[in-house]
Amino acid sequence: MSYREEFIVHPGARLHLSHIDPAYKGRHESHEKAGPLIAESLANMARLQYLLYANASRSLLIVLQGLDAAGKDGVVRHLFSGMNPQGTRVFSFKEPSAEDRAHDFLWRVHQRAPGRGEVVIYNRSHYEDVLVVRVHESVPREVWSQRYASINDFETMLTANGTQVLKFYLHISTEEQLERFKRRLDDPARQWKISESDYSERLFWPQYIEAYEEAIERTSTKLAPWFVIPANHKWFRDLAISQIVADTMNDMKLSLPPARVDLAEIRRKYHVAQRNP
Amino acid sequence: MSYREEFIVHPGARLHLSHIDPAYKGRHESHEKAGPLIAESLANMARLQYLLYANASRSLLIVLQGLDAAGKDGVVRHLFSGMNPQGTRVFSFKEPSAEDRAHDFLWRVHQRAPGRGEVVIYNRSHYEDVLVVRVHESVPREVWSQRYASINDFETMLTANGTQVLKFYLHISTEEQLERFKRRLDDPARQWKISESDYSERLFWPQYIEAYEEAIERTSTKLAPWFVIPANHKWFRDLAISQIVADTMNDMKLSLPPARVDLAEIRRKYHVAQRNP
Repeated sequence: MSYREEFIVHPGARLHLSHIDPAYKGRHESHEKAGPLIAESLANMARLQYLLYANASRSLLIVLQGLDAAGKDGVVRHLFSGMNPQGTRVFSFKEPSAEDRAHDFLWRVHQRAPGRGEVVIYNRSHYEDVLVVRVHESVPREVWSQRYASINDFETMLTANGTQVLKFYLHISTEEQLERFKRRLDDPARQWKISESDYSERLFWPQYIEAYEEAIERTSTKLAPWFVIPANHKWFRDLAISQIVADTMNDMKLSLPPARVDLAEIRRKYHVAQRNP
Repeated sequence: MSYREEFIVHPGARLHLSHIDPAYKGRHESHEKAGPLIAESLANMARLQYLLYANASRSLLIVLQGLDAAGKDGVVRHLFSGMNPQGTRVFSFKEPSAEDRAHDFLWRVHQRAPGRGEVVIYNRSHYEDVLVVRVHESVPREVWSQRYASINDFETMLTANGTQVLKFYLHISTEEQLERFKRRLDDPARQWKISESDYSERLFWPQYIEAYEEAIERTSTKLAPWFVIPANHKWFRDLAISQIVADTMNDMKLSLPPARVDLAEIRRKYHVAQRNP
């Protein structure tokens, strides 16, 4: 069974994050042993991204969500390490601006949707608008609870217009998060990143899990599925996601576009001999 | 002498591209021998980009120009292979859209300028508006000749607002260009890219060189300098540019921002013991 089948949240299914082991590492013993598979999936993605870019007819949108220190930045680095910077973009959605807040919650994300031929990663996304605002009660339930339907409609529209949507929840344990925060505290190069909210938000862990479970259940659809990725082991998280991305791009049946010119005519007209004919 | 000093076009100096050997490779015997230096400059850029991003006060704009097949795409890949995709973006300026054309020539490029903390590469740029339009006489001389001043004013303004601007002309020979076009003709994976204009534009080579020489002479300034990079050897081109970028970023005197919180207080309050104190 592929990781795509193993980690997908089937539409309509209930999700219990507590039943999923964040330290799961599949059939792999170690990072070292999984090395060749990781390299293979990166190479596959590189090849498929070239075809996506060359075709310029379809696009890929990858949504990354997870609690602080779940590894979203690391996944961005990993996925893009195998792709050409031309044709790939990442957007990190932080606090909305005054202009963003003057519009509907999908306005700012829609503007960053991938163009034809592009791979775009949303590092956080429109899903924050059914998560953080719910946990902190900054938006009333009547408002955020309507948003699942708006999100599904939006993603259906993107899909109908040629965008493949994949959504990943990076699943870590509270212990692993604390461990990662500790490493930041001990690392002078990363101390500037630390905010007290990193720690104070931990008090809301159960509420976040509840919000994620409902959001994922309500918005995992056949065409825009969610995957819950065990993410305590960074290398396993990267391997699973890159395999799912590569498998999905493979199913897009991308092929090289034909030459736009008569190659024989070009050779003749400009006196370019063919080599290794 | 560093490549920054060697390849800079001094403000006010005349530029004769025909006096510069596109096959120059400095003091390096081969790609293999230069390998460790290439790795070192990538590592330097990675470190400095992290500081730029962490500080979020300055930004870096890299302009790439050159004739077809000069290697702009390759430089983008090389520079970004050492940087975090978060905080880096590339924009390829192709044919302007109807909306672009309804505005001044700087309108579309200004929108893509780097934000604080960002590194942005323009793959082609506002310089096309004193190059291709001049060669093909699609804009009258009175119009494009005024643009040098507008460009200098624009780049001065960017600089005054914290953006370091670096501009690179990738210098290849006509023979090398033809060789690269031939390789494309022979490579099934790249035949879709070929257009007849690749070849027909070669007839305008002298006009392009003249247009580049004047554009570079008129817009190489102390704060936004041009560099002419010998680019027949891809590895030398990448090495020279990455050293110039790293040297420039080094001069920006970037340092880690201080922690925003009292780290000892965080440790105490959340019971996080210090390790290796």
